[in-house]
Amino acid sequence: MQPLAPLDDLWAVVPAGGAGTRLWPLSRSASPKFLRDLTGSGRSLLQATRDRLVPLVEDRLLVVTGAAHRDAVVAQLPEVDPAQVVAEPSARDSMAAIGLAAALLERRDPGAVMGSFAADHVITDEAAFGDAVTRAAAAAREGWLVTIGIEPTSPSPGFGYIHLGDDLPGHPGVHAVREFVEKPSLEVARGYLETGRYRWNAGMFVVRPGVLLDLLAEGDPGFAAALREIAADPDALLAARWLDLPKIALDHAVAEPAAAAGRVVVVPAALGWDDIGDFDSLAGLLGDPARSVTVLGERGLVVAQDASGLVVPAAGRVVAVVGLDDVVVVDTPDALLVTTRARAQDVKGVVAALKEAADDGTGRPGLT
Amino acid sequence: MQPLAPLDDLWAVVPAGGAGTRLWPLSRSASPKFLRDLTGSGRSLLQATRDRLVPLVEDRLLVVTGAAHRDAVVAQLPEVDPAQVVAEPSARDSMAAIGLAAALLERRDPGAVMGSFAADHVITDEAAFGDAVTRAAAAAREGWLVTIGIEPTSPSPGFGYIHLGDDLPGHPGVHAVREFVEKPSLEVARGYLETGRYRWNAGMFVVRPGVLLDLLAEGDPGFAAALREIAADPDALLAARWLDLPKIALDHAVAEPAAAAGRVVVVPAALGWDDIGDFDSLAGLLGDPARSVTVLGERGLVVAQDASGLVVPAAGRVVAVVGLDDVVVVDTPDALLVTTRARAQDVKGVVAALKEAADDGTGRPGLT
Repeated sequence: MQPLAPLDDLWAVVPAGGAGTRLWPLSRSASPKFLRDLTGSGRSLLQATRDRLVPLVEDRLLVVTGAAHRDAVVAQLPEVDPAQVVAEPSARDSMAAIGLAAALLERRDPGAVMGSFAADHVITDEAAFGDAVTRAAAAAREGWLVTIGIEPTSPSPGFGYIHLGDDLPGHPGVHAVREFVEKPSLEVARGYLETGRYRWNAGMFVVRPGVLLDLLAEGDPGFAAALREIAADPDALLAARWLDLPKIALDHAVAEPAAAAGRVVVVPAALGWDDIGDFDSLAGLLGDPARSVTVLGERGLVVAQDASGLVVPAAGRVVAVVGLDDVVVVDTPDALLVTTRARAQDVKGVVAALKEAADDGTGRPGLT
Repeated sequence: MQPLAPLDDLWAVVPAGGAGTRLWPLSRSASPKFLRDLTGSGRSLLQATRDRLVPLVEDRLLVVTGAAHRDAVVAQLPEVDPAQVVAEPSARDSMAAIGLAAALLERRDPGAVMGSFAADHVITDEAAFGDAVTRAAAAAREGWLVTIGIEPTSPSPGFGYIHLGDDLPGHPGVHAVREFVEKPSLEVARGYLETGRYRWNAGMFVVRPGVLLDLLAEGDPGFAAALREIAADPDALLAARWLDLPKIALDHAVAEPAAAAGRVVVVPAALGWDDIGDFDSLAGLLGDPARSVTVLGERGLVVAQDASGLVVPAAGRVVAVVGLDDVVVVDTPDALLVTTRARAQDVKGVVAALKEAADDGTGRPGLT
């Protein structure tokens, strides 16, 4: 591995969005996943993301978040210049958010390479992360759109996959991308795992800002032009023009067509990565093999007898669990969730029901 | 059935004790089962017991409770003369509690018959109850120790049983008691149910106070004499002599030996009786076949998806349950229980663990 050293031309772009619906009631629209400490580390996922990036980018970090969360982001990141926390007027998917950051950086630092890393993922092997980003930046400098492909640890049908192609000459550990594939069936995912030629798409991209915008312009010249115009005078134009931007994921707008055109490469890596997609994922991430019940929070509050799973005593109350396996109990001051690891994905249905009840006036607002 | 009319010589004795450990965290030593509304009726179990007895005894009701709960009992029963709420200095099992009531009544109303009925049981068929008590009182007037034997609805190993003997001449629907049997195995209980000759022992006794004390005196003359001495001057003697009284159940001290001597009769009855022994029992009692999840409390607080069981949202918070069958979720302001109906009996283990933690200083006091 290469030594972990700052890359003088690298900017980190951190899109901080998404409500984390499947982590309700810990994650809410008013207090989303990235603002929460979901690992018991004492740092929110956003703060941990910043901590992980500092050795690589020092103070070159741009956060793009919703206007509603900008104050909280600034408060959580006192080391970051508030001018580097950009507020989207409203959520317009990842192409607009990351494209805006690219357009701002293109003007600010024309020689820069940018790396985009979500604010709400966990990476436990920071040395491997630094190594992968360093390799990715080297390829990005030459004009490639570079992604980091996570080594799958299971045949998960919950992620998109990256199909590896040939080695990129002159860049050890970097491969061409044959294609991005959408979330597969479990059976197809099993096949992917067996070939050893597929990686999870964690949405990490390293690229020169101008390259990203030029790739976007090939498919949607107006979108790229609008981003560059906004970046030239954001105070005057951001609010006015934002709602006219297409609502589309960067994968669809740029990465997939660019891969088809042979313009994308990938750095495969095993990073101890987890997107904490639901409480099953969180239980696996925090799981302590020495204890049957994993506690996120104050262990002294939990009395577990003949039970296993995840307990989050976040309301300061005693939580007793008796005779349930793989249970998920999340206790917050105004809402309680009881489910199982196997049904963790279905928590979004609860949020939908609560939203509907709040909207039609039969339920309480603020719970989601 | 005989008409439900007051029995002029009948006094109700209501022992109000027991923490209801298996109903934690709803029931606590500071706020025991009998003081709680566990059926959603708007009345505590104690109040419902009094309501059920008033048509039979009018104002002739004596409550025996722990000193710690006397104020709460008096507050919950504003219609009862506070002089008729007797405080035990400490818990000394049922013989001392009911024996004290008998000794007090023997002096106050020498012609009385007393019926002892626990403060924390549910009876849904009040007409059948009135009929059974009326028959029991008729036999008690003639000097019998009379119990009411509950028709079993299942082969429960959780109750003691009463073995029916011959009919009592002149008293239709009254039988001799062959014996009281302790909690049987499930297999033995199944056999009892098949014979049709066994009834559950719900601890209901109807008897002349003097007869009860004389039966006690046959086995333990000092105990009976002490109770009569205390009753002659309770203000001076109750506190001083209470701790010298034997700690024994009425069943062992009187009912079992009296049955062996052929002095006990039983009125078999189907009363819709339930002792709400645990949350499984409570779920069965409240179970609404039209709904998969039974809610004790505010239904609007509960979001249940693909779930069944009992949810008690007693903290005013939203409770979401997803993908769990026969689950028990009891949410109170300072403690939460998550278990299953099948494991409801094991809740007492949680209380034991919390008590131990509070005693050794590692846990919070007041939780049990």
